[in-house]
Amino acid sequence: MGLFTKDIKTMNDLFVHQLQDIYYAENQLVKALPTMAQKASDPQLKQGFLTHLEETRQHVTRLEQVFKMHGVEIQAANCPAIDGIIEEAHDTASEIADQSVLDAALINAAQAAEHYEITRYGSLIAWAKQLGRNDCASVLQKTLDEEKATDRKLTSIAESKVNLRAAS
Amino acid sequence: MGLFTKDIKTMNDLFVHQLQDIYYAENQLVKALPTMAQKASDPQLKQGFLTHLEETRQHVTRLEQVFKMHGVEIQAANCPAIDGIIEEAHDTASEIADQSVLDAALINAAQAAEHYEITRYGSLIAWAKQLGRNDCASVLQKTLDEEKATDRKLTSIAESKVNLRAAS
Repeated sequence: MGLFTKDIKTMNDLFVHQLQDIYYAENQLVKALPTMAQKASDPQLKQGFLTHLEETRQHVTRLEQVFKMHGVEIQAANCPAIDGIIEEAHDTASEIADQSVLDAALINAAQAAEHYEITRYGSLIAWAKQLGRNDCASVLQKTLDEEKATDRKLTSIAESKVNLRAAS
Repeated sequence: MGLFTKDIKTMNDLFVHQLQDIYYAENQLVKALPTMAQKASDPQLKQGFLTHLEETRQHVTRLEQVFKMHGVEIQAANCPAIDGIIEEAHDTASEIADQSVLDAALINAAQAAEHYEITRYGSLIAWAKQLGRNDCASVLQKTLDEEKATDRKLTSIAESKVNLRAAS
């Protein structure tokens, strides 16, 4: 995008810009998730991060598919939001002395990333439908469903044991 | 928090750290919302941002109440996540030439902030309960309910007219 020009003129431009943004975000998460898995001590949480890493790789592939379906170049745009979310996760994790408390913080950090993605995919799907691209919307919906399922799974791990252990 | 020390040793420390994080975030949103209201052209959206500004001021006050109830100093911690979300909102808005498309992007930006807050308040409430602070949890729950209601309202404004107008 140009520094002094207004390059987003239509909803289609906004849709493509947002695709580039979430493409960057998913790729950053592919890099961040192995560290989160490594830092987690609860086995189910560790495995959950590794499973979500595989899903996230699949989300990258699906986005590439949507770029192609929509006839635009596969490209990433900077996404300061996900950079901030990941930076904050690292900052907080580096402050934590206790392993159980760290697990609780890792879940919280991962859920911030999930919710960022949930809102972005929600908009992308609404815009795709408005643009008459139900085919793109349906590919993006699969990812949104997985993000929501991961968020629910993280809440369940937190509430069933991690928070209890961290508070004891 | 110390640069070379691990200052979060207990879930209570994590709870207080997260309170400081969201206190910073809410204060940043108090600064950002008037600009968003000013940029919006749909009257309902403009009014929605102004109403949410008032709510956000109330969220700041509620957090101050929780700090006091919990017997800790009212303090903000840096929150790179909300900084990134707001920076991205400004960056994207500055690229948009069309007013209807800008409204769609403003809703998307506001929903990213809402979802960030929804996940943080969700954790704070779970942790407060685990720490036996149901009194704090119940104050935080009021804010969470308002954030969720704002998110639903934004979706409704987007789907009922803004996206339609932006795509036309």
